[in-house]
Amino acid sequence: MHILLTGAAGMIGRKLTARLVKNGELNGQPIERLTLTDIVAPEKPAGFFGKVETIAADMPAPGIGQKLVAHRPDTIFHLAGVVSAEAELEFEKGYRVNLDGTRALLDAVRAIGDGYRPRVIYTSSCAVFGAPFPLAIPDEFHLTPLTSYGTQKAMCELLLADYTRRGILDGVGLRLPAICVRPGKPNKAASGFFSGIIREPLAGKEALLPVPEATLHTHASPRAAASYLIHAAGLTREQLGARINLTMPGVCCTVAEQIEALRRIAGDAVTARIRREPDELVARIVAGWPHRFDARRALALGFRPEKTFDEIIRIHIEEDLGGKIAA
Amino acid sequence: MHILLTGAAGMIGRKLTARLVKNGELNGQPIERLTLTDIVAPEKPAGFFGKVETIAADMPAPGIGQKLVAHRPDTIFHLAGVVSAEAELEFEKGYRVNLDGTRALLDAVRAIGDGYRPRVIYTSSCAVFGAPFPLAIPDEFHLTPLTSYGTQKAMCELLLADYTRRGILDGVGLRLPAICVRPGKPNKAASGFFSGIIREPLAGKEALLPVPEATLHTHASPRAAASYLIHAAGLTREQLGARINLTMPGVCCTVAEQIEALRRIAGDAVTARIRREPDELVARIVAGWPHRFDARRALALGFRPEKTFDEIIRIHIEEDLGGKIAA
Repeated sequence: MHILLTGAAGMIGRKLTARLVKNGELNGQPIERLTLTDIVAPEKPAGFFGKVETIAADMPAPGIGQKLVAHRPDTIFHLAGVVSAEAELEFEKGYRVNLDGTRALLDAVRAIGDGYRPRVIYTSSCAVFGAPFPLAIPDEFHLTPLTSYGTQKAMCELLLADYTRRGILDGVGLRLPAICVRPGKPNKAASGFFSGIIREPLAGKEALLPVPEATLHTHASPRAAASYLIHAAGLTREQLGARINLTMPGVCCTVAEQIEALRRIAGDAVTARIRREPDELVARIVAGWPHRFDARRALALGFRPEKTFDEIIRIHIEEDLGGKIAA
Repeated sequence: MHILLTGAAGMIGRKLTARLVKNGELNGQPIERLTLTDIVAPEKPAGFFGKVETIAADMPAPGIGQKLVAHRPDTIFHLAGVVSAEAELEFEKGYRVNLDGTRALLDAVRAIGDGYRPRVIYTSSCAVFGAPFPLAIPDEFHLTPLTSYGTQKAMCELLLADYTRRGILDGVGLRLPAICVRPGKPNKAASGFFSGIIREPLAGKEALLPVPEATLHTHASPRAAASYLIHAAGLTREQLGARINLTMPGVCCTVAEQIEALRRIAGDAVTARIRREPDELVARIVAGWPHRFDARRALALGFRPEKTFDEIIRIHIEEDLGGKIAA
């Protein structure tokens, strides 16, 4: 099994790499080779005994797609892309990386053309949906994104489905919910506080809460995201049918419920580090996002979300804090 | 008012040009200039006293988009594209013309960038929908096309919506139903018989019917298509809202009802020229198409379909046969 992973230096890319290395196999086949790429060269994973190649590459640049698939990876996890805020601020860069980069990769697979037909797992996003929403967004809700990022993701979902239908590759697209708890530093993304109000207090720091506590959102841990990607790699074409782009499930809860979960796990002293500082702009942006998904198809196909937000916090403490909380 | 029309040499392009020239105005503004383009140079329309430029152009080729919008058309009717069967047979050509060509045009508008913001009317297609279908496809049915053509149209709908949201242009996409009666010679499109069984008998020729008479389909005349495009040019942004891609209404009827309408208008001798010759492949292809639309938004926005299939036949006799039927 040879696996190509794009966006390997990103947060989910690193978690997925670690999981693949730890598992040593995918779909029951030993992993013999990893090709890891990103705009900067990803780190070589420790403890992997197969062949590893790390490539710093700008995916839409001429010849890069061909270079990445030259050794015919059996499975391609395509995670590379610029994030939502960046795609909104930098119009051309967003289309170039998120649309043209994906197309370059798919066309490089097509160019081989001698029956080579890898499984391609594409990370899409719930940003493909746009308000107004029903109470819970069903699997067959139409795609009317309200950001350039969501537009690019929806366009790539369509490409992936057409390339799959034509037998060029064997695709599956996963619309990931918001990932929580994101490790690392606070960032300026409007969604940053969903992780911030958990991560910062657990590290002994103050966190700002810009939205009302009644704000509803759907979350999945980085571990769940990696599990989803691995599970998707094992689905058969018969299971997927013609509609290969799937909304992933998550834990839907209010900010108040997030804070209560944090209190149960870490106590009042930790939740006291959350400071309410209403920000109307952030509140308005967040109100326009999808809150809740009725991800029946994914559940029927065996994708397993966390059961509670407590579980999401515990995964963060275990994976990113070495089990330790700042009292 | 300066109008740019791409795909101007095609059937709908020619009908639309004739209508614009006859009307002499669009949205109450006199038409002073027409720029007509297609892969072959369109004919100069007779009886137009403004400035006309006809351009033979390959839209996705470098510099062509810029050339087409250099004189800042106020309204752009973007009809150019390769048809469904061709896009399916010629993968690269389909994506190049239908996706890259449209993107080149939109990006040329964007490149002007000094507040220029034309109304862009894009001809999409009901091929953006893919089976399984409900009995009638609602406005908000999700886009899961089952052809490369439908994929390209759906991708361009997304682009148009994003460019509109960002204020680069003022777009509206129309998903046209099957156009009937198509004038001209029989073609090899699987849908060709829907027009053929009307057009050929009226011209004194035999027509083959490859599908059961119970086959249901939705039709609009070429005249209705031109009316839809003109009506779309006059809609306001407030009327359209964020969801700018609209399913157009049509006359939904069975093949048996088409034939009965022909009998009412032209008599038994004409309908006797239809020969049943079942073709399982065609029947299977047609069965996978959308049959019926619940096009509420378009109706509420004032798009007016024909009321009966009889009306569609009479328009063909009037526009394409000079009022004469072969007895």
